[in-house]
Amino acid sequence: MVQQQRAVRTRQALIRSAAEAFERHGYVLAKLADISARAGVSVGALHFHFENKAAVASSVETAAALRLRRAAWNAQRPGMNAVQRLTATSYALADQLRRDVVSRAGLKLSGEPAREGSLDLRQEWQAFVEKVVAEASDENLLVERVEQRDMADLIVAATTGFELLSRRDPDGLSPSLLTNFWRFMLPRVPQT
Amino acid sequence: MVQQQRAVRTRQALIRSAAEAFERHGYVLAKLADISARAGVSVGALHFHFENKAAVASSVETAAALRLRRAAWNAQRPGMNAVQRLTATSYALADQLRRDVVSRAGLKLSGEPAREGSLDLRQEWQAFVEKVVAEASDENLLVERVEQRDMADLIVAATTGFELLSRRDPDGLSPSLLTNFWRFMLPRVPQT
Repeated sequence: MVQQQRAVRTRQALIRSAAEAFERHGYVLAKLADISARAGVSVGALHFHFENKAAVASSVETAAALRLRRAAWNAQRPGMNAVQRLTATSYALADQLRRDVVSRAGLKLSGEPAREGSLDLRQEWQAFVEKVVAEASDENLLVERVEQRDMADLIVAATTGFELLSRRDPDGLSPSLLTNFWRFMLPRVPQT
Repeated sequence: MVQQQRAVRTRQALIRSAAEAFERHGYVLAKLADISARAGVSVGALHFHFENKAAVASSVETAAALRLRRAAWNAQRPGMNAVQRLTATSYALADQLRRDVVSRAGLKLSGEPAREGSLDLRQEWQAFVEKVVAEASDENLLVERVEQRDMADLIVAATTGFELLSRRDPDGLSPSLLTNFWRFMLPRVPQT
């Protein structure tokens, strides 16, 4: 039992250490020896948990997906309208990315061309935005001349840009930047 | 003389072939043997022009910078106000990126963490946007409650997002997407 707990802790440490390596060096250049050393274990111990670098990356991505989906889920409150769900989710995801290197590295890995069969977390965000904008339209929250598709495209592009730019400027995902963004967008919907 | 012209043509072919390889595989995974083969020359001929992969990438980036700056320059017309300069430049850059693989690859290479001493074309775009938004303010083209800094940040984030998303969807830099974007932004300035 103690041994099993230690295995779980080692695995968690390896996922975190891998996330740090992927964030700093990118998937292609990250080294398994470096990942295991920073987790305080041998390369052999790493291979007990993961077959190869692709398997490590896949675990980082899966962990990131779980955490980002949980953050999005926790942001939903009863009685919110679609616009409130959208803005609250954006703050929750930005906060999760700001605080957690595994979430950041997993999102960066997602859709990385050098990897195969990855999840597509950006596609998931795009689908969510499109759904909520459509719901906002059903709930008569959008002013009439706004095209749903245009609004969803712009939200996805701008938030993708925020995330990309935050890789070199940690303020790129600050709540105030998001607030300014929603202040620009929200005149397009009746103020809530 | 003929020999010199041939050398120039070979160099151009290598830069284009390198841009295709960098776009498809990324800087780290692109192979010099592949780049020379696609340009129809030997690896030895490539090394006559470029010392190593870093030198090839640097030439692609420099060529992209020249072409993007020229496209931006050509978009300026006498009598344009600051807002018109901003939108016209955005269309010209999107068109240049859509049509030219060297421009796309150079922009993607710019600021790539695995390279040292690269130009920073994104920083150049950000500086341009900040300057033109400040000019728009001086020319009294902005409505009063818009913060210059917020507007510049949003424009940079959204256009960065468009460029990133266009890597998997070629429509990501279409004029209609940009038009929709400016339609969202421009109510913030008196219609021109």
